[in-house]
Amino acid sequence: MKKNSSTKDLNLTSNERLFLESRSPFDPLKYPDFKPKGFKIYTFNAGFKKKLDDLLIIIFDEVINIANIYSKTTTPSAPIIWDKKNNKGRVKALIVNSGNANAHTGIKGINLIDKYIKFLSKTINCKKNEVFVSSTGVIGELFDSKLIIDQIINMQNTKTKSLVDAAKSIMTTDTYPKVSIKKIKIGNKQLKIYGIAKGSGMINPNMGTMLAYIFIEASLSKSILYKLLKNNFDNTFNSISVDGDTSTSDTLAIFSLNQVKINFSIKKNFEIINSSLFEVMQDLSLKVVKDGEGISKLIKLNVLNCKTKIQAKNIAFSIINSLLVKTAIAGEDANWGRIIMAIGKSEEKINQNKIKIFFGSIMLCQNGYINKKINFSHLNKYMKRKVIEITVDIQNGKKNHTVYGNDLTYEYIRINADYRS
Amino acid sequence: MKKNSSTKDLNLTSNERLFLESRSPFDPLKYPDFKPKGFKIYTFNAGFKKKLDDLLIIIFDEVINIANIYSKTTTPSAPIIWDKKNNKGRVKALIVNSGNANAHTGIKGINLIDKYIKFLSKTINCKKNEVFVSSTGVIGELFDSKLIIDQIINMQNTKTKSLVDAAKSIMTTDTYPKVSIKKIKIGNKQLKIYGIAKGSGMINPNMGTMLAYIFIEASLSKSILYKLLKNNFDNTFNSISVDGDTSTSDTLAIFSLNQVKINFSIKKNFEIINSSLFEVMQDLSLKVVKDGEGISKLIKLNVLNCKTKIQAKNIAFSIINSLLVKTAIAGEDANWGRIIMAIGKSEEKINQNKIKIFFGSIMLCQNGYINKKINFSHLNKYMKRKVIEITVDIQNGKKNHTVYGNDLTYEYIRINADYRS
Repeated sequence: MKKNSSTKDLNLTSNERLFLESRSPFDPLKYPDFKPKGFKIYTFNAGFKKKLDDLLIIIFDEVINIANIYSKTTTPSAPIIWDKKNNKGRVKALIVNSGNANAHTGIKGINLIDKYIKFLSKTINCKKNEVFVSSTGVIGELFDSKLIIDQIINMQNTKTKSLVDAAKSIMTTDTYPKVSIKKIKIGNKQLKIYGIAKGSGMINPNMGTMLAYIFIEASLSKSILYKLLKNNFDNTFNSISVDGDTSTSDTLAIFSLNQVKINFSIKKNFEIINSSLFEVMQDLSLKVVKDGEGISKLIKLNVLNCKTKIQAKNIAFSIINSLLVKTAIAGEDANWGRIIMAIGKSEEKINQNKIKIFFGSIMLCQNGYINKKINFSHLNKYMKRKVIEITVDIQNGKKNHTVYGNDLTYEYIRINADYRS
Repeated sequence: MKKNSSTKDLNLTSNERLFLESRSPFDPLKYPDFKPKGFKIYTFNAGFKKKLDDLLIIIFDEVINIANIYSKTTTPSAPIIWDKKNNKGRVKALIVNSGNANAHTGIKGINLIDKYIKFLSKTINCKKNEVFVSSTGVIGELFDSKLIIDQIINMQNTKTKSLVDAAKSIMTTDTYPKVSIKKIKIGNKQLKIYGIAKGSGMINPNMGTMLAYIFIEASLSKSILYKLLKNNFDNTFNSISVDGDTSTSDTLAIFSLNQVKINFSIKKNFEIINSSLFEVMQDLSLKVVKDGEGISKLIKLNVLNCKTKIQAKNIAFSIINSLLVKTAIAGEDANWGRIIMAIGKSEEKINQNKIKIFFGSIMLCQNGYINKKINFSHLNKYMKRKVIEITVDIQNGKKNHTVYGNDLTYEYIRINADYRS
């Protein structure tokens, strides 16, 4: 629950300083970085934030395949409405601004996107529906498309940037940039799967305030891309929760960089691509939850031996979203009674006398009772760790589900009671 | 978000002091009180808490009718398991302890209840299944039934207590006792409906850590009692939320005090009984939510003009349970964008361009846009109030639902991260 105040940036707004001064204890501090092949990265300060870069433009060398998943929200942001209507799975450019979500901005919000996309598509000579667009930030405020158009004009005279620059430019309440890179060998050739993500609050399955863009250095069809997404989404981005809130803007997209030419059979190599993509998606989704607003501890929760996968998920999210469980972990209290409460709250039919609860490898209850042989000095030591692994064995079947969440601290309140004010 | 530290009780445990020192700003400070007719109230310190009374025993003058509703949890406490198995809707005594929930205590938890109920039923000469039992407090710890039996022995030499004493003896994290009294005239006779409740955290529909006992000075059949409960439960105790958590111990019971003899036709007078009971149930449920852990502001949320009642409820609870909405209110920020987010999160199909959001009478958005004519000096003044009324007009039908919740403050974290440690 402590603050990290190593940053002494000048001329930042109070919001900008607020987030920089409360860095997650999971900030890796070093971020893998490079300048990708197959596309160019531009970032700008367009005026959504006071000083920091807040606009990302990616121009692909050629038009490529994309697959994506959006928030299940029924109040989607203008960019999601625009993409759903226009995008046909082929893109030449990606444009993302942070600081203003362009959400709940009516037809005017759609029209302003139309203006800057029209301008960008003319500038780079592509179709309008070959531009993919996202926005993240405050809801309900219109902005002038000129803010973005001015930077599109500047683009020609600007140096290209790296992957970490791209990740930084899409941050809002994030305290560190989220980048993940995985190298694969196919035959004697190497290809990379890598991506960037942003997200810190409004994180829940389906998918939280989350933007994630993942690039595969391989020429893949749209149907293969969707299959890969579907295979890996549920156990990664759909298994994290910070605050149980769901954003209006969530977008996950996978880009197939077919310009990086390697001849290989996707049929033969599907598994290695699939498992490597899983690693990248899991790493990015964990980086999101580890930057959960106000986090002091990461909670890994395994729910084992349920009757169905849905039962395992319902119990898992009932526990991981429980404020009383989250505050107990913040207080380094192995309060397993609140876990029993949260299991019951799920209304899933189970036999409470069969439940086993473990913190790490320490069993806290079984057969309907507290474990009388708990080694409290071990337990207290365990609770001081930054990562708390809780295992709940329901003993009601054979289905498991693992989710990741974080504790609930004063910092969360501070960030969210003060944001925008 | 400030502390009230008017209490300087000595010899309290740190937990006892914690709650007394962070009194709700909604504490009415004066509580209606009297010694009821038709039953005797005894309260004791049985040793669950250090100094405060923690055991309530009510002995009715004769065996009377009772109707009740329990938590929907699938990990019920031992008292709920015991009551469900034994109680046939007729009671001679009520026994409630606070400080230990006797939850997740297996067959031993059931057996210890059996011991003290057996002793009580012998002492007062009734059947075992004519005793109604509840417990509230920490989950997962067995206690010795002797703690309670010793006080049953003491009962004969003890003075009877008043309604407020009863309410105090069942408190856990509550910062004030919850009592409500309503007087009705039928013909030239007066009768009272009154009750006590406890609850402060783990409050959610279905029903939160909540115990409520309501007494009607009238001879009513079990079926009438259940009808009255069913009529009024949904808009009172089932429309409040503090933290979205659901306790293992929730119980609401209505007792028909037929010993207070008034001859009247229930058929002719059902409406006045029904509406008066509603007032008592609403008052008690509001007292529970107003004592929500760490509360600084009460939120009244009206969701209007939905397609179905279920849609109105889903949207209402999605908003009232949103951490981002709750923290915004704590920060006195009329962040209506987070309300748009929470509406979308419900996944209810609505037209976002029709949504109107009001704080008090101040409209913040309509037709898909922010209202440009907001009087911010009025709005900022409104946000400083202790009670914030939010109205969300969905314009999608004719069904409404109103719920009550509270803001999320540092105090909530403090109470729940430190409790039990």
